Amino acid sequence: MELTVYLAGQIHDNWREEVEQLATNKGLPLTFVAPQTNHERSDNIGDDIIGRQPSKVHKDEAASRINNFRTQVLMEKADIVIALFGEKYKQWNTAMDASYAITLNKPTIIIRPESLIHPLKELSAKANVTVESIEQALEVINYIFE
Amino acid sequence: MELTVYLAGQIHDNWREEVEQLATNKGLPLTFVAPQTNHERSDNIGDDIIGRQPSKVHKDEAASRINNFRTQVLMEKADIVIALFGEKYKQWNTAMDASYAITLNKPTIIIRPESLIHPLKELSAKANVTVESIEQALEVINYIFE
Amino acid sequence: MELTVYLAGQIHDNWREEVEQLATNKGLPLTFVAPQTNHERSDNIGDDIIGRQPSKVHKDEAASRINNFRTQVLMEKADIVIALFGEKYKQWNTAMDASYAITLNKPTIIIRPESLIHPLKELSAKANVTVESIEQALEVINYIFE
Amino acid sequence: MELTVYLAGQIHDNWREEVEQLATNKGLPLTFVAPQTNHERSDNIGDDIIGRQPSKVHKDEAASRINNFRTQVLMEKADIVIALFGEKYKQWNTAMDASYAITLNKPTIIIRPESLIHPLKELSAKANVTVESIEQALEVINYIFE
Amino acid sequence: MELTVYLAGQIHDNWREEVEQLATNKGLPLTFVAPQTNHERSDNIGDDIIGRQPSKVHKDEAASRINNFRTQVLMEKADIVIALFGEKYKQWNTAMDASYAITLNKPTIIIRPESLIHPLKELSAKANVTVESIEQALEVINYIFE
Amino acid sequence: MELTVYLAGQIHDNWREEVEQLATNKGLPLTFVAPQTNHERSDNIGDDIIGRQPSKVHKDEAASRINNFRTQVLMEKADIVIALFGEKYKQWNTAMDASYAITLNKPTIIIRPESLIHPLKELSAKANVTVESIEQALEVINYIFE
Amino acid sequence: MELTVYLAGQIHDNWREEVEQLATNKGLPLTFVAPQTNHERSDNIGDDIIGRQPSKVHKDEAASRINNFRTQVLMEKADIVIALFGEKYKQWNTAMDASYAITLNKPTIIIRPESLIHPLKELSAKANVTVESIEQALEVINYIFE
Amino acid sequence: MELTVYLAGQIHDNWREEVEQLATNKGLPLTFVAPQTNHERSDNIGDDIIGRQPSKVHKDEAASRINNFRTQVLMEKADIVIALFGEKYKQWNTAMDASYAITLNKPTIIIRPESLIHPLKELSAKANVTVESIEQALEVINYIFE
Repeated sequence: MELTVYLAGQIHDNWREEVEQLATNKGLPLTFVAPQTNHERSDNIGDDIIGRQPSKVHKDEAASRINNFRTQVLMEKADIVIALFGEKYKQWNTAMDASYAITLNKPTIIIRPESLIHPLKELSAKANVTVESIEQALEVINYIFE
Repeated sequence: MELTVYLAGQIHDNWREEVEQLATNKGLPLTFVAPQTNHERSDNIGDDIIGRQPSKVHKDEAASRINNFRTQVLMEKADIVIALFGEKYKQWNTAMDASYAITLNKPTIIIRPESLIHPLKELSAKANVTVESIEQALEVINYIFE
Repeated sequence: MELTVYLAGQIHDNWREEVEQLATNKGLPLTFVAPQTNHERSDNIGDDIIGRQPSKVHKDEAASRINNFRTQVLMEKADIVIALFGEKYKQWNTAMDASYAITLNKPTIIIRPESLIHPLKELSAKANVTVESIEQALEVINYIFE
Repeated sequence: MELTVYLAGQIHDNWREEVEQLATNKGLPLTFVAPQTNHERSDNIGDDIIGRQPSKVHKDEAASRINNFRTQVLMEKADIVIALFGEKYKQWNTAMDASYAITLNKPTIIIRPESLIHPLKELSAKANVTVESIEQALEVINYIFE
Repeated sequence: MELTVYLAGQIHDNWREEVEQLATNKGLPLTFVAPQTNHERSDNIGDDIIGRQPSKVHKDEAASRINNFRTQVLMEKADIVIALFGEKYKQWNTAMDASYAITLNKPTIIIRPESLIHPLKELSAKANVTVESIEQALEVINYIFE
Repeated sequence: MELTVYLAGQIHDNWREEVEQLATNKGLPLTFVAPQTNHERSDNIGDDIIGRQPSKVHKDEAASRINNFRTQVLMEKADIVIALFGEKYKQWNTAMDASYAITLNKPTIIIRPESLIHPLKELSAKANVTVESIEQALEVINYIFE
Repeated sequence: MELTVYLAGQIHDNWREEVEQLATNKGLPLTFVAPQTNHERSDNIGDDIIGRQPSKVHKDEAASRINNFRTQVLMEKADIVIALFGEKYKQWNTAMDASYAITLNKPTIIIRPESLIHPLKELSAKANVTVESIEQALEVINYIFE
Repeated sequence: MELTVYLAGQIHDNWREEVEQLATNKGLPLTFVAPQTNHERSDNIGDDIIGRQPSKVHKDEAASRINNFRTQVLMEKADIVIALFGEKYKQWNTAMDASYAITLNKPTIIIRPESLIHPLKELSAKANVTVESIEQALEVINYIFE
């Protein structure tokens, strides 16, 4: 059984490559999908496609609609969602995506450092599983195949 | 027609009273529901009811389940959701509640200061309306009754 | 049994008053809800609440989000939808609202003149009932109470 | 990941071939489905299969039921919907299909010329993305695969 | 707690009055809704409202759309559905309404004579409860209030 | 695009083979599924598997649960439902299956002889398309692939 | 805001009266609904209404269908579900009702003694809140009204 | 047509192997999925992945969340659910999984010994089919392919 995993969360480091590497090491039959991880491209995608917007707020509006389109297409294909929160940045997209996934009844794993236990406690309580490391998240998925 | 409005968002100031005052001034037939706004009570509710938990993480787990229970009961009753983001705090609960409401097809208004336009852009694009002040949010609701 | 009826469709004449008058004449226990029928107010509502937008397209974007918010709140309350198409104007909102209502399983009546039979044929086939006059639409609703 | 795209909209020119050509040029793994684009066949399909109907309105009723059947089968298979509005014709089917798709949570792109911004503003606000050209719509889809 | 009961089934005798009488006798807080029980009116309603149709099949099409509209409005209001099958007539409407109700998760009681056990066996297996008399059906509803 | 078609309806003649033959002749990429068409096996399946039941009504109850199980599994797999009504028999299962399919939003074609137009009129109005012959039903499906 | 609470669980003692007493003491605006708590009546209801069944298994089948009918009607009305597990009895109905409620997105509280923590752990993890006493469950509901 | 079958129920004997052997013998095109059947691993999975929990209740909480995650992923993939109850153990997970499956409209077979007829009667009435042996359950599935 092949499973598709959506990797929600911060796009400022290469944690998704680490996930994929671990999945390969464990021989897990997973396909990964994710938001645009090139931050600049993600911010500019509205202007890039639709043309220069008249202000920053309208640039953000145009970009975010295309980013949401991408997320919605890929989330629909996902059997599992992993949402990773790091210590920097607001990451409201990550919370939005995790809540969207949980409401759609997609099995969801949250990865967050110990320092974020308190501010993420209600979201953690709604997710299926919350862990502190990528390695643990993959062990949870690996458990399906035992 | 009476409408019930869930007021998601920060619990560190009295913005909800301001909302209610404005609604009264405009003579709008609204009932307001909200999360627990006593921060300490909200953090301690698990220990208060179930008993002292063995660690901070378990205290948070116990409290968050009861907070989520409250939110789910009241959100079900809501015809409209207003989610307010302030400049301080993580406010992932607010993003979680707004995303939950939008996914359930509840009409949703986001209030956020200009400084948060960029980090909230994807959530704003999914919400029905985004405004910068409480006054504007009430004008949007008032428009239903014109 | 009281029923709420959403009156989708053109906002350029006073057909909604005619509907309400007929319902009163027949003594039907109906409450009517509708989009903003002041055309200018409907077009300007974004600028009126959020402030002057930088271009006509952004003015339209801001207004339409608030108009959609109003429609979604009121459509949720509706037991029945009447969608009236006249001979002038594009009226894509009317088609959008009727299709939204039908997809949500709301019983829907279309009113359209004979001249629009052909271009509206697929939408008519999906609606519950299609008639040519307001009088006929009210007779259909009256039939529920016989 | 293969995706299926439903091409809603006018059937009076060859814009769908243009879409397919662009997708091929970009090497996108897309399958396209669409309504019947032979206008005469689409209008006559009821009479062609069920037999000559007694009037134009009944001919339209018979044809539209079969056209709706086709749309429903193919729309169910679609991961993405593109709805194109041109400057001529009523195109209420296009608005109906786009609204149906959005209500079913299918990610939807609207293509419309600048001249239609105003009459389509509420539908645009509900769709994920609105663009002005076929090229832009394909860039939006291409963005999923970046 | 007030409950609304939809009485699906044959319209050729006065079984619905018998139901209402028994409910009154038992003091049950029930409101009853039902299809049009004037058979002639039900058959002619399309011609009555929309005008004389060109053939019997088109007369039936017009009438059935308005009958379905009525059923859909009232079924939505129902907490419970009773579907009665008698020994005469095809009664496919009754089977259609019962199956619609069951699929919408409405608690459903079937009343049928012993002679119809075999042809109704699959529908009986899907309904919540099957009984042989109106008296029994009311006892089942009475059980809710014990 | 391969499509799966559920063939609901009478099991007393070989109309399903005729459907399959026509599909083969037209080269349509269809897979057909259906209820148990061996009437005796269908009636006895409860006793065959679970053991002799104490009465005819309990034999019917046991058989119908297993027949419904089969229908539910196969209906879930179907993209299209064809429901055929013949002139003999009660065929309430056919009405039940068609109504179940329509309520689940499965595109549905009804085949019925002219003599059944009147008693089937409400179900016909809810189905996507109603025709009088198997040949016509296959033409409707063929139209999807034009 | 009035709330309706379904009290699932064992019917062998008077715990429901205790719940109602506590709610009254706290002045909570709650209405309580529940399964039939007269055990003998619950076991005999099929025979009582439909007539003597030929065996114990058929008696159970007849009774359980009517009990499920009652539960479904009342559960639909509930805003909150409390499911109490005691130390005796199988109580599979309680687990069935709790799982049904959770799947329908009804906010659910489980009450169970310490001795049942382990066998109920997966159900507890799916419920919103798990407590050990009736008093605690009422405190959780009271928290909604703070 | 390949079907996936989720095998809910006790994990204390090798009944799942027996199911798979019978399916192989009959040549049925079935894929089987199931919960973790290594009891010790299932109880320890929280501690194994997330680390030693501070008490038995927290160990159970951590394990059950990961077990529920596994069940949700695999249940989503299932076309059919078989739930087996044995004479020992509480088996509330089995009742929870069966009720979850039935509520999601998954065709469900219960296997239970004669001794459990009475305590499982309400769940049996909601399931599609109830049998007493693994052999019978496989015959029910085999019936789909006849």
